[in-house]
Amino acid sequence: MTLPAYGERSPMTLSSPLNLAVVGLGRMGKLYAQTVATRVSGASLYAVADPNPAAVAAIRDQHHVPVTATDARDLFTRPDIHAILIATPTSTHADLVIAAAQAGKAIFSEKPLALTIPETRAAIAAVERTGVPLQVGFNRRYDAAYLKAKAFIDEGRIGRPVTVKSVGRDPFCPRAEFADPAKSGGLIIDMGIHDFDVSRWLMGSEVERISAEGTLAVCDTLAAVGDIDNALVNLRFANGGLGNVEVSRHAFYGYDIRTEILGSAGGINIGGYQHLPVLLLTRDGAQHDVLPYLMERFGPAYQAQIQAFVDGVREDKPVSPGGADALAALEIGVAATLSAREGRPVTLAELR
Amino acid sequence: MTLPAYGERSPMTLSSPLNLAVVGLGRMGKLYAQTVATRVSGASLYAVADPNPAAVAAIRDQHHVPVTATDARDLFTRPDIHAILIATPTSTHADLVIAAAQAGKAIFSEKPLALTIPETRAAIAAVERTGVPLQVGFNRRYDAAYLKAKAFIDEGRIGRPVTVKSVGRDPFCPRAEFADPAKSGGLIIDMGIHDFDVSRWLMGSEVERISAEGTLAVCDTLAAVGDIDNALVNLRFANGGLGNVEVSRHAFYGYDIRTEILGSAGGINIGGYQHLPVLLLTRDGAQHDVLPYLMERFGPAYQAQIQAFVDGVREDKPVSPGGADALAALEIGVAATLSAREGRPVTLAELR
Amino acid sequence: MTLPAYGERSPMTLSSPLNLAVVGLGRMGKLYAQTVATRVSGASLYAVADPNPAAVAAIRDQHHVPVTATDARDLFTRPDIHAILIATPTSTHADLVIAAAQAGKAIFSEKPLALTIPETRAAIAAVERTGVPLQVGFNRRYDAAYLKAKAFIDEGRIGRPVTVKSVGRDPFCPRAEFADPAKSGGLIIDMGIHDFDVSRWLMGSEVERISAEGTLAVCDTLAAVGDIDNALVNLRFANGGLGNVEVSRHAFYGYDIRTEILGSAGGINIGGYQHLPVLLLTRDGAQHDVLPYLMERFGPAYQAQIQAFVDGVREDKPVSPGGADALAALEIGVAATLSAREGRPVTLAELR
Amino acid sequence: MTLPAYGERSPMTLSSPLNLAVVGLGRMGKLYAQTVATRVSGASLYAVADPNPAAVAAIRDQHHVPVTATDARDLFTRPDIHAILIATPTSTHADLVIAAAQAGKAIFSEKPLALTIPETRAAIAAVERTGVPLQVGFNRRYDAAYLKAKAFIDEGRIGRPVTVKSVGRDPFCPRAEFADPAKSGGLIIDMGIHDFDVSRWLMGSEVERISAEGTLAVCDTLAAVGDIDNALVNLRFANGGLGNVEVSRHAFYGYDIRTEILGSAGGINIGGYQHLPVLLLTRDGAQHDVLPYLMERFGPAYQAQIQAFVDGVREDKPVSPGGADALAALEIGVAATLSAREGRPVTLAELR
Repeated sequence: MTLPAYGERSPMTLSSPLNLAVVGLGRMGKLYAQTVATRVSGASLYAVADPNPAAVAAIRDQHHVPVTATDARDLFTRPDIHAILIATPTSTHADLVIAAAQAGKAIFSEKPLALTIPETRAAIAAVERTGVPLQVGFNRRYDAAYLKAKAFIDEGRIGRPVTVKSVGRDPFCPRAEFADPAKSGGLIIDMGIHDFDVSRWLMGSEVERISAEGTLAVCDTLAAVGDIDNALVNLRFANGGLGNVEVSRHAFYGYDIRTEILGSAGGINIGGYQHLPVLLLTRDGAQHDVLPYLMERFGPAYQAQIQAFVDGVREDKPVSPGGADALAALEIGVAATLSAREGRPVTLAELR
Repeated sequence: MTLPAYGERSPMTLSSPLNLAVVGLGRMGKLYAQTVATRVSGASLYAVADPNPAAVAAIRDQHHVPVTATDARDLFTRPDIHAILIATPTSTHADLVIAAAQAGKAIFSEKPLALTIPETRAAIAAVERTGVPLQVGFNRRYDAAYLKAKAFIDEGRIGRPVTVKSVGRDPFCPRAEFADPAKSGGLIIDMGIHDFDVSRWLMGSEVERISAEGTLAVCDTLAAVGDIDNALVNLRFANGGLGNVEVSRHAFYGYDIRTEILGSAGGINIGGYQHLPVLLLTRDGAQHDVLPYLMERFGPAYQAQIQAFVDGVREDKPVSPGGADALAALEIGVAATLSAREGRPVTLAELR
Repeated sequence: MTLPAYGERSPMTLSSPLNLAVVGLGRMGKLYAQTVATRVSGASLYAVADPNPAAVAAIRDQHHVPVTATDARDLFTRPDIHAILIATPTSTHADLVIAAAQAGKAIFSEKPLALTIPETRAAIAAVERTGVPLQVGFNRRYDAAYLKAKAFIDEGRIGRPVTVKSVGRDPFCPRAEFADPAKSGGLIIDMGIHDFDVSRWLMGSEVERISAEGTLAVCDTLAAVGDIDNALVNLRFANGGLGNVEVSRHAFYGYDIRTEILGSAGGINIGGYQHLPVLLLTRDGAQHDVLPYLMERFGPAYQAQIQAFVDGVREDKPVSPGGADALAALEIGVAATLSAREGRPVTLAELR
Repeated sequence: MTLPAYGERSPMTLSSPLNLAVVGLGRMGKLYAQTVATRVSGASLYAVADPNPAAVAAIRDQHHVPVTATDARDLFTRPDIHAILIATPTSTHADLVIAAAQAGKAIFSEKPLALTIPETRAAIAAVERTGVPLQVGFNRRYDAAYLKAKAFIDEGRIGRPVTVKSVGRDPFCPRAEFADPAKSGGLIIDMGIHDFDVSRWLMGSEVERISAEGTLAVCDTLAAVGDIDNALVNLRFANGGLGNVEVSRHAFYGYDIRTEILGSAGGINIGGYQHLPVLLLTRDGAQHDVLPYLMERFGPAYQAQIQAFVDGVREDKPVSPGGADALAALEIGVAATLSAREGRPVTLAELR
């Protein structure tokens, strides 16, 4: 099969909006569809696809979507669709990326590209062969706080980064079916992949060695699927820098995402607990609420990453983070999972 | 003129969206139009009006608005328009409210209804005669933090409210043309009206006596229009409670809105400085940013108040805050302005 | 009576410690005695006096105090005593200051010098006549946070001060016998005098007009002594600046002292709620403790003011704040009390 | 050698103060001497010893110390000395503990007891043989914030502890002579021993396996003595719990000590950045200071631990933390140092 060169597709100019197809209308897909339809400029929610016709119809009616399908691949052949946003279950990401790349579409894929290194490499290879833009949904890179921290580092405000530490705690034990490592990659990959990505990004260096400890302490239902609910992952970077990532399934007090960087001349702490600016003062002391869920913290970042993708594609500029970032974060996750299981340090060189 | 009873208008059911007209497409009007078009459920941005045809065309094209006008009154006679959202200059609010009420439309008006007590009373009278719903844009009542504080009070968490204090500081001196008391009502009314409204609401009592001090300290251009840039307003409530409102034009560090309530058994503090959750730590100490502008703080409250208006109208339930609230807050503002000018306490009884 | 010139007394040099007498061994007196004995350099706790012999004996034994008396005046004639620290009930301050001044002693007096303006003036006159050093216990001027704020202002970090606001809330309703205005001066003087002092100091200008509102809301036992438990005091300064002081007897959540200054180019906020750096995170949100009592907040300031007094006297340098500061703060308190009672603004000019 | 039974020494009753000897008058020894002399009840600073006669004379004169020596052992034979506080260089701790134990004295030793496990065991054995009380200077166990966190855990407020993380950052690179591992034990032992101790204490379980990564990133002078300046240490506890300790020599922004515990039902965070409660607000944002040095953070804990030691000895109750705690923390430090050097996990079983 001869692939069309990207430039041969329906001409795209800055004056016309990007016709975007959202593939997969589960919780994240619905959110992306709404984001594209109402909060992104320069793109229209032109098509949606999901095996569930009712889900398709609901989004179609709500957002006046002109094109729909129950099989995503039916959309890929349409020349009037410029870009595919993949929000399907993780196990299907790689195949859809490959198919969309072969169809010459610009691609935004939710993280991760795949749960295994070979599948991830295959998807990246397809994208490289066809030259289509690929952006991966590491939304924290578009969070205003993380961007500000990155800018501080790039400006030299803390000198050279020396140690990066990241904490990711979800508010509730997941249902075992979602946490099943066969589907999620397991705790360390499923949750830690964001932390591994921002750690590389903020440190400006690649991880070389990983030592992890994990435990199953609270979420008993995970025993059935063979997973853990807490892990601590030490990282050694090529530049001599150090890192630690903590992931936990059960911070019942809220959604707790923090990252700190210690540099040679100062430090940066990203994250905080309080959600609403209300302090209650009583004989029991002071009380305030805590950030409850993902979207209260990263809703704007989800929007910003799609806007950046749309802008990049329309202006024919590189989009980021891309396939290499997806691979690098996954490799750390795979190595950390192995380290926790075997009780020994794992180098990324071993995996290659 | 025989006014149509509200129920005689185009039938409204929960299954059809509210056809809403935004009147006035300045900064706030554009924001309201976008909010209605993309972030409110149960309503459509059905019509817009503004004397400036280019402003009308821009919003029409962006949001596919079916009906447009350069004279708002041309919209009022259309039976397919259910509700009018008034975002015009303050001096026109009262006349538009009266005309919309006479046309049997549900009305959302930006605050204040008018700059004078008689005009406000006239607008309220028209609304009461026709029985249309009227909601006034005291958006803080729909801010999640203020709502939580109100809930704490209603639950008795701080006992009886005793003292309420509110601070409103804008980040920059306004241009004299906007601050001109003839157009804005002057510092105390223009800025303080929100604080007066939430003070009444949180205290659960009416203000009886006002003592204010004002000064022109920083925004020199205000001298030309005879206004001040800082004021402190003491309030005495009917229930014996006390209040203080500070308004300032020139908190160059950011947009600083705080309210605290001391009760007989505890206290509540609403507001905070930090915007993004990033702390920079250097030899100079710790630094973080400050909330910059109105919309970073109250954007969701603007959306929530319109949603509440739409829901109330569609479900035929009372909307709030209404005309009486607008009048009460304005009266405090008028009395405080008089007190600052004359250097004496002013009772609301004097104004009646 | 011919008073000895200050220089004629027992010679004082930097090489010998200041022999200090603490007069009054109630709660504050005991604290001062311990501070002098263990935490101040350059002075010794040389004498104590109190009508209660048991209190005297306890302190004498604990700190090996060489000289004791049950009548303070017995100490004033001793040439080996260099300085008198007055910590007796307020009603006796002025007479003791006058007697100590006539005896040529350096004087540190707890605030206020007296509850009336004439008594305060008489004490100041005696001090001026004899030329002895007099420092008044406005400890907040020696608190590290207030000093830092003052330094920021003096360095021009916030431009010119425009508005100063101060809050003082005690954790518990006092016993009526302590709050009796005949002994305490009443709420506004008793508690507000610190806030009036720091407001003048930070604003760098004198108060001209005062408008106060007060209420009795919670501490019912104060009705018997005719006092209120909450007040809000508006201030107008000679330089056009504005001020507001809130005092409350019943912040049951803790000891809440805050002062903020808005300047022409920025602001400063002094004070905070949290005592221990521990945050508890549970399904009920985040909780922390609150500063409980005076000494947890101002203990070091009590020590620092005595150290400054000792250093100043030993080095023959001016000590501060002095009699004029005591008078100025009292005048504001007297005017505010009058204003709250009569419901009208009171100028300091009226009181003179 | 027949050791005197502890009860045969000079009789000690609650009515007489404990005669305490401070041995070693360097920076910490001076601080301890002052603490005993002025801030501890039930004990007197009865003796001091230091090889430097000038240091001895200075403390003797300042605090009227009756007994002095240049050789600490001269004090041990005196029956009028009840307790020895050891604040000498680390390399001498173990021998002094042994000698003091043989002399039947109650012992407070600065941490660590020794830099090697055998020396530590020898010291503990001497103490156990003679039955004297031994308390080791892990002051954080007496910090009010750590005590509150421990109480929260013991009350079940966060369920079972699952993960403990501790950060210790010093404000400045040390001089190489102080940091020399031969004297200090190296970064991980020198700084981390406090974190290892509180981690065990808060987790309520013993560490079994340690994986550490270290780097020399900033403090170049440490290269000469073969040490690192940053380390991250993962811990696995016997109860399945996890831990991570970070130590750094160069947080130039201040003295940064934090510990957090995630439990099965909530979390606790100990520590904070701000020192003085002053916030400066300018066009550059908000700024505040940071805790600068050890004593601003832990001064009261140093006092509290000595008070607890004195109380325990006088009341003949167990003192804590003791020798077993010192050994356990040192073992973790030794294992972590080995792990960082060899790039592999180390179990404590290996060291035994």
